[in-house]
Amino acid sequence: MSAYDDLMAFQRETEALGSIAGRLSWDQETVMPRGAAEQRGEEMAAIEGVLHARRIDPRVGEWLDKAEAPDAVGEAQLRHIRRSYDRTRRVPARLAAELARTTSVAQGVWAEGRAAEDVSAFTPTLEKVVSLVREQAECLADGGDPYDALLDDYEPGATADSLTGMFGAMRPRLVNLRDRILGAAHQPPAVAGEFPEAAQLALSRELAGAFGYDFHTGRIDKAVHPFSSGSGRDVRITTRTAADDPFNCLYSTIHETGHACYEQAIDPAYAMTPVGGGVSMGVHESQSRLYENQIGRSRAFTGWLHGRMVDTFGDIGIDDPEAFFGCVNRVHRGFIRTEADEVQYNLHVLLRFDIERQLIDGSLAVADLEEAWNARFEADFGYPVDRPSNGCLQDVHWSVGLFGYFPTYSLGNVYAGCLHAALREAVPDLDGALAAGDTAPATGWLRDNLQRHGGLYRPREVVERACGFAPSEAPLLDYLEHKFGAIYGV
Amino acid sequence: MSAYDDLMAFQRETEALGSIAGRLSWDQETVMPRGAAEQRGEEMAAIEGVLHARRIDPRVGEWLDKAEAPDAVGEAQLRHIRRSYDRTRRVPARLAAELARTTSVAQGVWAEGRAAEDVSAFTPTLEKVVSLVREQAECLADGGDPYDALLDDYEPGATADSLTGMFGAMRPRLVNLRDRILGAAHQPPAVAGEFPEAAQLALSRELAGAFGYDFHTGRIDKAVHPFSSGSGRDVRITTRTAADDPFNCLYSTIHETGHACYEQAIDPAYAMTPVGGGVSMGVHESQSRLYENQIGRSRAFTGWLHGRMVDTFGDIGIDDPEAFFGCVNRVHRGFIRTEADEVQYNLHVLLRFDIERQLIDGSLAVADLEEAWNARFEADFGYPVDRPSNGCLQDVHWSVGLFGYFPTYSLGNVYAGCLHAALREAVPDLDGALAAGDTAPATGWLRDNLQRHGGLYRPREVVERACGFAPSEAPLLDYLEHKFGAIYGV
Repeated sequence: MSAYDDLMAFQRETEALGSIAGRLSWDQETVMPRGAAEQRGEEMAAIEGVLHARRIDPRVGEWLDKAEAPDAVGEAQLRHIRRSYDRTRRVPARLAAELARTTSVAQGVWAEGRAAEDVSAFTPTLEKVVSLVREQAECLADGGDPYDALLDDYEPGATADSLTGMFGAMRPRLVNLRDRILGAAHQPPAVAGEFPEAAQLALSRELAGAFGYDFHTGRIDKAVHPFSSGSGRDVRITTRTAADDPFNCLYSTIHETGHACYEQAIDPAYAMTPVGGGVSMGVHESQSRLYENQIGRSRAFTGWLHGRMVDTFGDIGIDDPEAFFGCVNRVHRGFIRTEADEVQYNLHVLLRFDIERQLIDGSLAVADLEEAWNARFEADFGYPVDRPSNGCLQDVHWSVGLFGYFPTYSLGNVYAGCLHAALREAVPDLDGALAAGDTAPATGWLRDNLQRHGGLYRPREVVERACGFAPSEAPLLDYLEHKFGAIYGV
Repeated sequence: MSAYDDLMAFQRETEALGSIAGRLSWDQETVMPRGAAEQRGEEMAAIEGVLHARRIDPRVGEWLDKAEAPDAVGEAQLRHIRRSYDRTRRVPARLAAELARTTSVAQGVWAEGRAAEDVSAFTPTLEKVVSLVREQAECLADGGDPYDALLDDYEPGATADSLTGMFGAMRPRLVNLRDRILGAAHQPPAVAGEFPEAAQLALSRELAGAFGYDFHTGRIDKAVHPFSSGSGRDVRITTRTAADDPFNCLYSTIHETGHACYEQAIDPAYAMTPVGGGVSMGVHESQSRLYENQIGRSRAFTGWLHGRMVDTFGDIGIDDPEAFFGCVNRVHRGFIRTEADEVQYNLHVLLRFDIERQLIDGSLAVADLEEAWNARFEADFGYPVDRPSNGCLQDVHWSVGLFGYFPTYSLGNVYAGCLHAALREAVPDLDGALAAGDTAPATGWLRDNLQRHGGLYRPREVVERACGFAPSEAPLLDYLEHKFGAIYGV
């Protein structure tokens, strides 16, 4: 056995153990008995301990020193393994343990502070988290930019500078579009009717299938917060239902189907290796958002969906497919990122990106977070935050130490905008298929041009290869202005 | 930290990882997508590899050499850990790997042979399994009796000699009872009616609750072969349904509830330690069989169940609780162990025990297995085996290398007989409660006198402590002859 073979055999087992940890998380969010939470914590800690030990195993370093990649796939494998090895080793065990302990407690403190609408109750805890994350970032940066080092965990190769340019170009156009839409005379209708849970879930399964989700290697369950989980031949998704809002269930399912189809489409030859998973959060989000928005909320597809809704639920309060298209794309005032429409969603993310960079570089104190948040929100959305649970306490991310994660949501939207433009070029009659509920020309193009590669190329590289042009924010903004301009007549 | 504390901290993580492996098996049998089987095999191999490495970790030996138990519980912990450490180290890695590989293939060959009713197609594979298991047994025996060494894996402290005495006393009385019953003039009726799956499962949940199963730390799902899984605060059970036989579902559930309640009742102070699980297969089976048979098929409890059946399903073809009691306890001709009634079940096990001992000591060749099986079956059951799937190919156990496992089923029945006798002494008005569907006096007595101890005492010891007398086959045989003599008038 060569050093490369030894390393890959070892890594394959690590991947299998990582897959097990993911399966435990799925179990916890879907089927686990409530009383098992504490025990599960101990189980998770045990498997994480095993994984951590393997990631910093000195043999990995020795193999990496000697290993010669047999081909381009092998080079990508080594790149992923070295990256994980270096990052894990840079954070001292003491700091990793303190971060784990602190964020585990902080999540509870955050939830209490949010429930009590009391930012100050969370401030000391968040200060501690931010301080530890800054320390972690400096270890990871190894002399480079600390925020970039955090970002690199979710989006390898991305930098705050490049994102700042991109987001800076997006913000004024999005604010302007949002302003025009919310002031428009025409406002689309809302659905009204009876939407039984079983019927929502049945249509949800049909939609997942229509987008190419393979139930032979997956399943759908309910969860409080929808997510997709797993890779290779076991990729599961979850959804949720709301009695008066069927779109919550249906579009959550389509979104998670996008994530899951990406994993299911990766070349099986890469299974149980570092190259065998989605390459970054941003590219992952590009797939889920493209399935959900550019395809799922297109005029053509919603025309088909309107018929399926009426078949399923009877009278939904909207007879006309054109009005239904407006309804599905309704832009509405709101404070919550996860409930935001396509137009305003990125404004929520841009706000968080700018604020978290300041928290990490120290130019904003945690004590001043609420004030900064509220000022920025009013500037971008046009109305003031009414309470902390609608403001800086709405997301769990910072309490669990996730800094550098938020921008990948908007980067995913930017990539989706690019891929959508390229897809339209490549498949001129896309709308003809979508109008019949047939997504295969779209999902097939994505599978062949992007998804199958998994982690073979770098994130930005795989998008550029698929598109045939360098990714930028322009296609997304053009798409949004065109689509919503038409719907709202602005 | 003392050596004992170090060892226990290490062991606690091992237990947590073992718990994860068990959870994966549950997932595989209940919710896993079918296409994930191969990937799951790789995941299971990875976690088993981690567990194996921990079980033979030389530090365990060093800690064991130095550790001083702080109390009686600590002594039990050390006993369990040393036993596992010694057993694991005695089997060479080469042999363990070959056994794993061979049995993994053998299970498929067995299934094909059974489907084709072709013993000879399975013979060469079973010969290889038996040969490897004999080798393993000799390693484990360390100069002692090989079969006892295998048995010890499932029932620490039990020996073939002691079981032979016990089973030898059972066989003639059981054959005689079976003979009288099947020749009796009176034969109980069978149920007839509509038994929708949802109603079966709802009543099944009610029964699990009635026997004290805690859904806060458990759940019920469907599986092809019912089982219970997990320990501590996450103990799940499964059941199955048959459209025309509601008892299949209901009594499978009660059986698995017995296993699960044992695990749920163990002192929480022992959680995630070797003492925190059921002490042996035999003691485990004593709980499941006692719940299922001595309680669940008692005249008093079936009187209550009859009412709940009629409430649930309407007309079930039997109006009279006395006739219903006979129906639930019907003794019938049949070839399959898992479908056998209380009277004939142990005859199935005794047959397997005698044959597998001969396979291990070499006095019976695998090539002669079918002939030996069929001769013994006809002698004990009174009619000939009609085909291999109803004979020596019916059970999966031997194909996966489980030798020494079968006798624990009958030992469990023997223990259940003893515990039932002691329970009747301790709770004179047990039937009054059972007639109202109240199992608490029975399950509470078992919890307080046996279940809560987990692995604190040795298997036979914990039964004897609960009973107040040395376990023997007599109470079981007396109970069977009395109960079935009355039902059949023989």
